[in-house]
Amino acid sequence: MKNQSKGFVAIVGAGPGDPDLLTVKGAAHLARAHVVLMDALVHPEVLKHCSPTARILDVGKRAGGKSTPQDVISGILVEEAKAGNYVVRLKGGDPFVFGRGGEEAIALSESGIPFEVVSGVSSSVAAAAACHIPVTHRGMARHFMIATASSCHETDPLYAEYRVLIESGGTIVFLMALGPLPQIVEGLTAAGLDDETPAAMIQNGTLEGQRIVSGQLQNLPHLVNAANLGAPALLVVGQVVSLREDILSAQHRSTICADHLEAQPVPPPFAFS
Amino acid sequence: MKNQSKGFVAIVGAGPGDPDLLTVKGAAHLARAHVVLMDALVHPEVLKHCSPTARILDVGKRAGGKSTPQDVISGILVEEAKAGNYVVRLKGGDPFVFGRGGEEAIALSESGIPFEVVSGVSSSVAAAAACHIPVTHRGMARHFMIATASSCHETDPLYAEYRVLIESGGTIVFLMALGPLPQIVEGLTAAGLDDETPAAMIQNGTLEGQRIVSGQLQNLPHLVNAANLGAPALLVVGQVVSLREDILSAQHRSTICADHLEAQPVPPPFAFS
Repeated sequence: MKNQSKGFVAIVGAGPGDPDLLTVKGAAHLARAHVVLMDALVHPEVLKHCSPTARILDVGKRAGGKSTPQDVISGILVEEAKAGNYVVRLKGGDPFVFGRGGEEAIALSESGIPFEVVSGVSSSVAAAAACHIPVTHRGMARHFMIATASSCHETDPLYAEYRVLIESGGTIVFLMALGPLPQIVEGLTAAGLDDETPAAMIQNGTLEGQRIVSGQLQNLPHLVNAANLGAPALLVVGQVVSLREDILSAQHRSTICADHLEAQPVPPPFAFS
Repeated sequence: MKNQSKGFVAIVGAGPGDPDLLTVKGAAHLARAHVVLMDALVHPEVLKHCSPTARILDVGKRAGGKSTPQDVISGILVEEAKAGNYVVRLKGGDPFVFGRGGEEAIALSESGIPFEVVSGVSSSVAAAAACHIPVTHRGMARHFMIATASSCHETDPLYAEYRVLIESGGTIVFLMALGPLPQIVEGLTAAGLDDETPAAMIQNGTLEGQRIVSGQLQNLPHLVNAANLGAPALLVVGQVVSLREDILSAQHRSTICADHLEAQPVPPPFAFS
């Protein structure tokens, strides 16, 4: 299977969770792979596209465990490719949306390894969509922003900018937002954002077990706690959250009206067909 | 093929251009479709996943031509589904990223038609990635924003917010940016953004004929004109544009250094393997 010439690396976005949101191109790379380095957040079912002889290396971080350091991962990519292998680096979401794909691409470039970056569906947009929240909407949201919550501090001057962007008709999605939720809410409201702004926290978006808690910004930390939401979770802030009730099919709207303060599984696709 | 019961609509993101960036789930919906309503920016090759008996309706706008009004499109979706058909609404990029998918979803919901939204790879991230620009990068860009240029005016107060977001380590992608480029550059520099900020304009990102012009913000309108770039094109503003040279394989770096002021096709994947 291996060729004598230099190997190749595809840095592939596996998408937001649902294994069928992998791209056709990503699946094709997996089918050719001798070696796959995968992250913790990638759904194992994505590996059904691999050859049975492919070696699967788990380099992801799990709760409480340690991840493989980035330079070690880059080193493995280079070494496996130099050995003549067709390597897939499989990352959750999109490789260039907080995926550190740029660092791996630079390492490969510096080592002269041929590579390709295959974009994926980002959880930032898709998790919201799976919960019937469009990040943009004509006449309501004309821009949106993706940020990580991990680097935010309550006093970060950026919160004032975030406030303006939301008030001017925008949506902000904070990834990895579960732990820092109280600081984000405090930062946004201290910067003057209306504490009744619609907001939603989504756990495991696009997966069957996805859960969503929605309400007003000021109440969200309490609601999320009461519902015992877990990671991975992202936070959506903006008027578009209120569209959820309009977009949900009439069959389900009554459920939402009654339950929107509690975590609830979202009906799977086709359930109401 | 048709069933007696109510039909179904899948609102599917076809991805950024490259037909193989369609998702596996999107392809599965196309295979089941009796009717497909497609936009102008969707690559025709995506239709290879359809049944030969599927009816393809082109409802997209082409340069100089007229698009089908949104309420007419929504009406067709409802009528086709009510006739018992399995309908795919195929949209460029992601349906909820300036795709007006929310409006169609609401129309379907109000008519009681079962539907699903299938997220797609957004051109905002993928076109940049295809040109070796990561919208986020550790230590350089910790947030990014997607905006449409069509609604921007030179004096829009948002430009001051954009400036802060870029200066604080962020990236902004303006979609549909070719025509309004001079206003955007004027607005950002009038708001105080360093006019030497790296910026790039990308035409037909992820397609074989993609072209990129990169340089400093202040020079970009001139460079884009000189290169005669056409639509569809998006604008990336931020330090990450400078990573392009680091991420390009060493084999191609010399070309870029010589030519970065001119439009150039990006080497296709595998060309240097």
